[in-house]
Amino acid sequence: MIIIRKVKEMRRRASDWRKEGKTIAFVPTMGFLHEGHISLMREGRERADVLVVSIFVNPAQFAPNEDLDRYPRDFEGDEKKCRTNGVDAIYCPSVEEMYPAGYQTFVNVREISQGLCGASRPTHFQGVATICAKLFIAVKPHYAIFGEKDYQQLQVIRRMVKDLDMDLEIIGMPTVRESDGLAMSSRNKYLNPDERRRAPALYQSLKAAKATFKKGERDPNKIVGIVKKALKKAEPCEIDYVEVRDALDLTPIERIGNKPAVVALAVKIGATGLIDSLVLKT
Amino acid sequence: MIIIRKVKEMRRRASDWRKEGKTIAFVPTMGFLHEGHISLMREGRERADVLVVSIFVNPAQFAPNEDLDRYPRDFEGDEKKCRTNGVDAIYCPSVEEMYPAGYQTFVNVREISQGLCGASRPTHFQGVATICAKLFIAVKPHYAIFGEKDYQQLQVIRRMVKDLDMDLEIIGMPTVRESDGLAMSSRNKYLNPDERRRAPALYQSLKAAKATFKKGERDPNKIVGIVKKALKKAEPCEIDYVEVRDALDLTPIERIGNKPAVVALAVKIGATGLIDSLVLKT
Repeated sequence: MIIIRKVKEMRRRASDWRKEGKTIAFVPTMGFLHEGHISLMREGRERADVLVVSIFVNPAQFAPNEDLDRYPRDFEGDEKKCRTNGVDAIYCPSVEEMYPAGYQTFVNVREISQGLCGASRPTHFQGVATICAKLFIAVKPHYAIFGEKDYQQLQVIRRMVKDLDMDLEIIGMPTVRESDGLAMSSRNKYLNPDERRRAPALYQSLKAAKATFKKGERDPNKIVGIVKKALKKAEPCEIDYVEVRDALDLTPIERIGNKPAVVALAVKIGATGLIDSLVLKT
Repeated sequence: MIIIRKVKEMRRRASDWRKEGKTIAFVPTMGFLHEGHISLMREGRERADVLVVSIFVNPAQFAPNEDLDRYPRDFEGDEKKCRTNGVDAIYCPSVEEMYPAGYQTFVNVREISQGLCGASRPTHFQGVATICAKLFIAVKPHYAIFGEKDYQQLQVIRRMVKDLDMDLEIIGMPTVRESDGLAMSSRNKYLNPDERRRAPALYQSLKAAKATFKKGERDPNKIVGIVKKALKKAEPCEIDYVEVRDALDLTPIERIGNKPAVVALAVKIGATGLIDSLVLKT
């Protein structure tokens, strides 16, 4: 396994792999790797000849009031997990390497970045799209693998790749959960024992929504009501949003019809923002 | 010479060329090709194994009140010029191919897109950066060749390529001029005989600026004054801007010192916007 810290080296290695006819799978991460990331690595390991994992806590996707500085980091642990899971290269550039003095280029994926998490984090998906564009351009992957847990992020990236004519396939993988249903996330580490005990209510509320949908409910407002009621088990908590949206372009829907639909939520338990989502209809 | 109208075909051909170990030179244009474009093609022809020219009048870089609809087009003439000048492939996608329904991704190169032409055309360079990103991603060139005539555009593209970690070299080529000094431009076609007679005053005013600089003048305001005085020969005309700026990052400068400097102007003669620029100090 090699460690790559410079853009130029990453580009050169990727070009060489491509010239040798090798396929490249890529898993972008912010590190502090958990079972969710590892499921993405396994998928990449199966799909391609070379598996690259990036570890980069991207300042551009954090607002000034967010948790950039205290975002959990554990490079040594991550390195071990990558080695155990067949990773060929870790790409871990410094902030100065990615955003040197004078840096001023940003990618915006407009409509799909608005609403949901974009409402309270208006520059977040610009940061995500920009770093993913840079990573895809340098790593030149055939496949890039993302978790469905960050559902809006996945759709933003899909749209960007399509719009910018990028020649790679985006693979979305199912959310990996703890045994009690809590979606795995590096941020779960922030939860104190009591908060952790309440956190599974998020997934339970989504399952309640799906059960209602399966029984025939097609009114998004009613489904949102079911979720909010079920979220009472997480109290005290602060609901950022609960919404039913078109599962692909994330536009609001008035009634669930033939098109795919997703229910998504963001909740603050204590100081920790948690998100989760469940596709109601594919 | 092949004609490529689809993104997928362009990407596939470019990948094949790269796999065969061929180098690719790329000249992006909006068509209606003149000697300026041809000088770029010649440079490309010398530098690389494969020469691709794109012809695409890019709606995203025109504001609603601008000349998109009447922008001059002559595909048959362009095709002939490409063939004569050793072009291997013309990439000429339709507007629907480049911006299909649901398109929503835009690239912004922030500070450098502001001021100069960006002041009166606030979305212009976003359109330029976006289309160039798409073209570079699909054509995968080793070299992309631009005229220095669109000086701010050249610096915007250089900055974008650097910021997004794109693995290609941007080549800027000197402005090609008519015998009386008028910078070649597809828009010169709009000028009536009387306007055409006045238009060489633009370059004359820049030469006057350079002469003053060579005599020791280092005050941008004085140099701008010289240019504006010389532009009287183009009257009646409407000056959009005359400015002396840092020649690389295009920031305003208070006094010309050791750093490179450029004088740039935009003038409307009749209904036709013309731009020109001259590097005072490299």
